[in-house]
Amino acid sequence: MSNNKISETVFKRISEIVGTENVFTGQEQLEKYSHDETEDLVYYPQAVVKPENTLQISELMKLCNEHRIPVTPRGGGTGLSGGALPVMGGLLISMEKFNNIIDIDVRNLQATVEPGVITEEFMNAVAEKGLLYPIDPSSKGSCFIGGNVAHGSGGPRVVKYGTIREYVLNMEVVLPQGEIIWTGSNTLKYASGYNLTQLMIGSEGTLGIISKIVVKLICKPSQSLVMLASFSSNEEACAAVSAIFMAGVTPSALEFMERRGIEWVIKYDEFRFDLRPDAEAFLMIEVDGNDLDVLMGEAEKINEVLESNGCTDVLFADTSYQKEAIWRMRRAMPLSVKSNSIYKEEDTVVPRAELPKLIKGIKAIGAQYGFDSVCYGHAGDGNLHVNIIKGNMSNEEWNTRLKEGIREIFELTVSLGGTISGEHGIGSVQREFMDIKYSEVHLNLMRGIKAIFDPRGILNPGKIF
Amino acid sequence: MSNNKISETVFKRISEIVGTENVFTGQEQLEKYSHDETEDLVYYPQAVVKPENTLQISELMKLCNEHRIPVTPRGGGTGLSGGALPVMGGLLISMEKFNNIIDIDVRNLQATVEPGVITEEFMNAVAEKGLLYPIDPSSKGSCFIGGNVAHGSGGPRVVKYGTIREYVLNMEVVLPQGEIIWTGSNTLKYASGYNLTQLMIGSEGTLGIISKIVVKLICKPSQSLVMLASFSSNEEACAAVSAIFMAGVTPSALEFMERRGIEWVIKYDEFRFDLRPDAEAFLMIEVDGNDLDVLMGEAEKINEVLESNGCTDVLFADTSYQKEAIWRMRRAMPLSVKSNSIYKEEDTVVPRAELPKLIKGIKAIGAQYGFDSVCYGHAGDGNLHVNIIKGNMSNEEWNTRLKEGIREIFELTVSLGGTISGEHGIGSVQREFMDIKYSEVHLNLMRGIKAIFDPRGILNPGKIF
Repeated sequence: MSNNKISETVFKRISEIVGTENVFTGQEQLEKYSHDETEDLVYYPQAVVKPENTLQISELMKLCNEHRIPVTPRGGGTGLSGGALPVMGGLLISMEKFNNIIDIDVRNLQATVEPGVITEEFMNAVAEKGLLYPIDPSSKGSCFIGGNVAHGSGGPRVVKYGTIREYVLNMEVVLPQGEIIWTGSNTLKYASGYNLTQLMIGSEGTLGIISKIVVKLICKPSQSLVMLASFSSNEEACAAVSAIFMAGVTPSALEFMERRGIEWVIKYDEFRFDLRPDAEAFLMIEVDGNDLDVLMGEAEKINEVLESNGCTDVLFADTSYQKEAIWRMRRAMPLSVKSNSIYKEEDTVVPRAELPKLIKGIKAIGAQYGFDSVCYGHAGDGNLHVNIIKGNMSNEEWNTRLKEGIREIFELTVSLGGTISGEHGIGSVQREFMDIKYSEVHLNLMRGIKAIFDPRGILNPGKIF
Repeated sequence: MSNNKISETVFKRISEIVGTENVFTGQEQLEKYSHDETEDLVYYPQAVVKPENTLQISELMKLCNEHRIPVTPRGGGTGLSGGALPVMGGLLISMEKFNNIIDIDVRNLQATVEPGVITEEFMNAVAEKGLLYPIDPSSKGSCFIGGNVAHGSGGPRVVKYGTIREYVLNMEVVLPQGEIIWTGSNTLKYASGYNLTQLMIGSEGTLGIISKIVVKLICKPSQSLVMLASFSSNEEACAAVSAIFMAGVTPSALEFMERRGIEWVIKYDEFRFDLRPDAEAFLMIEVDGNDLDVLMGEAEKINEVLESNGCTDVLFADTSYQKEAIWRMRRAMPLSVKSNSIYKEEDTVVPRAELPKLIKGIKAIGAQYGFDSVCYGHAGDGNLHVNIIKGNMSNEEWNTRLKEGIREIFELTVSLGGTISGEHGIGSVQREFMDIKYSEVHLNLMRGIKAIFDPRGILNPGKIF
């Protein structure tokens, strides 16, 4: 369908649209754009462009649509499913020059932001006004907010504050044929036809290129408490998770970590922490709000739940230094685990009370197929990141038999009422598992929607389905 | 396209599918299904069926698709945009026999429910387990949860607890050609391809017939406080709304009411209330939570904001009787206002700080076109229900010139960053205003999506676009 060779004439036109200073074709310039944070994938685009405004994107899309050139939009390049990789070559559009916070509207508790703004910079900018934008993935220091929207990204605070779907109100989007629309309205409610804002969120850059985003903000709570609870088994830690919610408390973070994850943070991040010998699994629990007495009451309630659910030790972080340290440990885990070995990361999610069955099943499948795994993640949402460790596996086993094991993990996840990605997206790496979750009828609906937006299939081809 | 005359042969087949006891064709049996709560619209279907299970719906859809018979799904019939009316005749599928609460899963804080369950009955059932399903439209005593999902319904608690989008996790849906899918997974996060759950919510029964719904539940707060604040002008009351949020408080309800609305509740609902002579507009404010001291603190903060925003009087509801009375007043308003005169209700929504401009503009447009209006609604969401009163307008003016005025109201709404329906949907009555909000490109995307799901255009034709 698409033509991944860009002709001289088209190149000339691309340079006219964005200016020669925004077109890159040298191998060393392209290298950065040939990978993201997904394991070991490498795909080079033929060229990278860095448009500076929406009209330039529109012109680029018209041109590429006419010439059937694959276009891959890219945010911060921190994705974990290969969604921003130009798997079919062609043109890569880097959104890095869309880096303005256009407006923070304190009266309406909304902000309008360009997609190339780094998530943490945006969070800091709104925090200066006493406001909170709570969607903070682990990569918040380098990911772009546009990529977060495109992937339906999450992070630890979803458990209390909801997913990114609850914050994005409206978007300016350039469609694959170059038209520009606003998907919705800047309102908290919307019942005016099909909700294209919601359809666009999580569509991984396959339906349009996001060029402006209007998000809801909330007032920033002033207080928080952090606890770290130890358990002697994964299942016990996971079972405590749903018990906390059933007690009527909604933590602002509820993260699960396996012992080995912490050991590797200690090893690779030079983190100091005394691990009790009997502690095999941990829950990090944060509560936040404006009233410290209320939070103390909530922490007390959580403590009772933990004690009656097999918790062996609870560490209360008394100082902001201790709180920071525990957060740092959790945030350092993905990179520390990845530093240790070749790995593959799967992003399982189930109803939260099914977590004990999920983690038990994952370990059993690992034992059967001969792979080891380190799990951590947003347990309060039932979202477990499974890091499969190559360790001593042979290359052959790693490249062939492992896939069967991963398939079994996803089959288990789906059988527990879950799905194959909670927040990382399908991208190019999970496509082969879509049949576990979806019937052909269902996939054909998705393909049909894609074809309505992108009849020539030029935008981010080779992703999702 | 469609064939609204059902042949004898097809009738026979319909009766075989659902049983003759579930097929209705007599004029007096059809009367109930010929209207909803939308002003004065009347459309008769050729027949009404009441299927008892998903497979029956699937068989009905296959049959109607084959014979191009229009199918209109119907919930409780409480809609305000004519969404459930068989405007093209054909078959009406009443979901009233889908009235089981299948499971309340306390461990996962989820429930699985059939679409024909009355919203309030569902709320009561989960409340018995200490849980809250917070989506309670005014019609909660008679509307169906399936209709709420199909319309993206709201209600007063959206302001704190979010819209119905944040509660629906997964749905079983019968597609127009008879296939059955589950739209998503029973999880709090989902990044596994296009989100058909979110697409289905608010699609007004045009993409599929919802046959099961999985919703998220939360723990029910044990305490609440209610205040009623008086203002001497609509604009002052509306301006206070965003000030409350800016002070860092999120009420669990923040409702605006014009004086006349309350007068009519007093008149038609035999409600006793002493209206101060200088009170022209009111805000009803509720805060909820588990700690009464915290709520008192929040109420105090709100009181300060109210005082510095022109509020003339604040009534604190001290007893549960008083709280109930104020809620009853608000809930009785739609019917009381509608009892007084022929009316048309518009469902405007804007970013909340734009409410003063919206209400001022509505009154100015009314003055220009010679119509009177009574406004009330979910001010915390920027959602204002505008009840246009026929009063002394001539029939001719009512049927012709009024539309220009309504068009101006929607143009104003959209120019303020809003949209033409916040929670009532487009249905058949707001279709003619879609051009105010959407370009042809945008509408064509919606039409394209419709055609993917329903190539023959048989499901709920004549709605949205």
